[in-house]
Amino acid sequence: MTIGDANRECLRRIQAGTARLVALRPARDVVPGLGERSVLHAGPPVAWERMCGPMRGAVIGACLFEGWAKTAEDAVRLADSGALAFDPCHHHRAVGPMAGIITPSMAVWVVQNDARGTEAYATLNEGTGKVLRFGAYDPPVLDRFAWINRALAPILDGALQRAGGLDAKTLIARALTMGDECHNRTTAATCLLTRELAPHVAAARAGDTERALAFLARTDHFFLNIAMAACKAVLDGAHGVRGATVVTAMARNGVEFGLRVSGTGDRWFTAPAPKVDGLYFPGYGPEDANPDLGDSAITEAAGLGGFAMATAPAVVQFIGGTPELALQITWRMYEITLGEHETFKIPALDFRGAPLGIDIRRVVETGIVPAIDTGLAHREAGVGQVGAGIAEAPIACFVQALEAFVAELPI
Amino acid sequence: MTIGDANRECLRRIQAGTARLVALRPARDVVPGLGERSVLHAGPPVAWERMCGPMRGAVIGACLFEGWAKTAEDAVRLADSGALAFDPCHHHRAVGPMAGIITPSMAVWVVQNDARGTEAYATLNEGTGKVLRFGAYDPPVLDRFAWINRALAPILDGALQRAGGLDAKTLIARALTMGDECHNRTTAATCLLTRELAPHVAAARAGDTERALAFLARTDHFFLNIAMAACKAVLDGAHGVRGATVVTAMARNGVEFGLRVSGTGDRWFTAPAPKVDGLYFPGYGPEDANPDLGDSAITEAAGLGGFAMATAPAVVQFIGGTPELALQITWRMYEITLGEHETFKIPALDFRGAPLGIDIRRVVETGIVPAIDTGLAHREAGVGQVGAGIAEAPIACFVQALEAFVAELPI
Repeated sequence: MTIGDANRECLRRIQAGTARLVALRPARDVVPGLGERSVLHAGPPVAWERMCGPMRGAVIGACLFEGWAKTAEDAVRLADSGALAFDPCHHHRAVGPMAGIITPSMAVWVVQNDARGTEAYATLNEGTGKVLRFGAYDPPVLDRFAWINRALAPILDGALQRAGGLDAKTLIARALTMGDECHNRTTAATCLLTRELAPHVAAARAGDTERALAFLARTDHFFLNIAMAACKAVLDGAHGVRGATVVTAMARNGVEFGLRVSGTGDRWFTAPAPKVDGLYFPGYGPEDANPDLGDSAITEAAGLGGFAMATAPAVVQFIGGTPELALQITWRMYEITLGEHETFKIPALDFRGAPLGIDIRRVVETGIVPAIDTGLAHREAGVGQVGAGIAEAPIACFVQALEAFVAELPI
Repeated sequence: MTIGDANRECLRRIQAGTARLVALRPARDVVPGLGERSVLHAGPPVAWERMCGPMRGAVIGACLFEGWAKTAEDAVRLADSGALAFDPCHHHRAVGPMAGIITPSMAVWVVQNDARGTEAYATLNEGTGKVLRFGAYDPPVLDRFAWINRALAPILDGALQRAGGLDAKTLIARALTMGDECHNRTTAATCLLTRELAPHVAAARAGDTERALAFLARTDHFFLNIAMAACKAVLDGAHGVRGATVVTAMARNGVEFGLRVSGTGDRWFTAPAPKVDGLYFPGYGPEDANPDLGDSAITEAAGLGGFAMATAPAVVQFIGGTPELALQITWRMYEITLGEHETFKIPALDFRGAPLGIDIRRVVETGIVPAIDTGLAHREAGVGQVGAGIAEAPIACFVQALEAFVAELPI
């Protein structure tokens, strides 16, 4: 078998991958390998001592949410003591946007890829601004976070069960025809999800259905986490193809950027997390921003986000730039990918499939790196989101990955 | 005052126009001048004897719905007897898609243009396919129609009241950034409307809220009628500007196409309704199609539909053609319009405003006619929708209008 054969098989698995949203459950009930003091985080492995500000903030928030600490100082002491079992989300079939913290009591979406028998998980989205995943943890943030996980989650799980699950892949495909690239813009996907679930939420007449539906109505990023879990489920199904040079995960912990390649197993190839070139909320500037953060770059590895930028001209208002830039970014991504998505189509490019299957060889040969359409966290714990923009994956990761791949080739 | 001044004033009124969705009420309670046997129809005036098949079918359906007749034959006899008072919707501040039939018991959306003190009305959308507005009237069609008007309408009116009304102009502007041109494609606008109303529908817990929300979830054209009423409210506010050559209404009754101009009062300028160039549902072809029908071309007169085609590349799948065609249509419409919409922006054209204010002089000078993105009705009563496509407004209407305008100029 040649590398070409391996890559074709890898791509075939991605194209055939399914993403069925089946449930919302407490992480402890579904996420494999989660202990009672487990704290999962975004990106490749990073020790508590080296974590960036927003990730430390989110860990503090998670400790307060779980009742493991009564104050932020208690939470820091607890983490310092070594009592928390930190581990990347990706090591537990999970993904988390920004800090990506998952602890046992948090609710997670369950997405199944029936074509490959894989399952993936992601938390619920809290909206933008001052939210836990961006490192904020003051009382209003935690009150909302508790409501989302303890009140909203059961309502939506009930609706999802009543609906018999939902096909997240189809929702993503439709949203791409409605101006979403499904990473930094998920307005349409959230609307589509909301209208599918709303009849079942209303029918259940259990819990505060009005607040639940009102929250969905004002949380345009709500679908992001579902998109991430869908991409994770699909890409995990294409991971581990011997000889394949296709990227199956890109993730950032705010200190390091890491990637995994289908043919090189579970090893991470890392480099310092890049700065993000973007637009800042009023009162903030580049000096406030943490380097690139979060597991959400899994969407780019699956043909969404920056790769599908051409379908989302309105997102450029949020990140700075012009609709022409959106087209250029997608065109550039075709240079480093092996195929075009058979389901995720871009109307503005005459329904051409989104660029799919990042080939580490092409990245190294061309010097073109994946463009990631992402949010921007404040570099300090406790603040939250300060903007959004485009991050460029560090080429060093791809060079390392290619060297490792070559080193393992049979002579 | 010059014609230029008059047109600027007319355009200023369109730009400043508002469209607040305030209620859903039985037509008899709100539509001015409606008698107990009034039957309003789309387009310029047309007598029962000359009505096209789908309009006759919808009249039959309306008579059955109102209980004025027990069978289709009874309904035809009733209409033949002269007992029904036919009149265009436009003569009652109302608009109706396709046949556009409005009778006293039907529920209508009420949209207010506070900037000019005008109010406009439109019925509820029934979905596509075999529906009353396309001329179908068999029992399942009428059962659904009765449910829509008698059960769904009060639920949505209650939700709308609870929400304190909704800004339809803002919903349209958002939908334009999500792939809708708000005539033949209103998927995004319907989703946005649904998510705004859903919390209030759920909170009311009155009526079959599940069926109501499920109907919205599968009726992508639901917002069309609201968009039409919004455009009517805005354009009525710009009608009657002495010396203005701007089109304030385009409407078709399936036999004739008619238009009104701001500076020539309530007179209609008519010509035979054009054929529609489009895509047919399986089993149907051009020989089955009725000529162009419906008041929905009011959207084009307000910068939407064919004029905003560039923002809706996915709609071309529904009507035949390419995304490039969508861009070309919008570019051509800039040739015959006086301005660009300050609120309705097209992301794909770098957020340029939609072409706004059709100038009858420019149409006659250039020979470029408005492109109307529309549905296609079967030419016989009782069948329904058979496709969708692009209609070209007949130039004869514009020539007549210009001649009449010139004839009234002071010497």
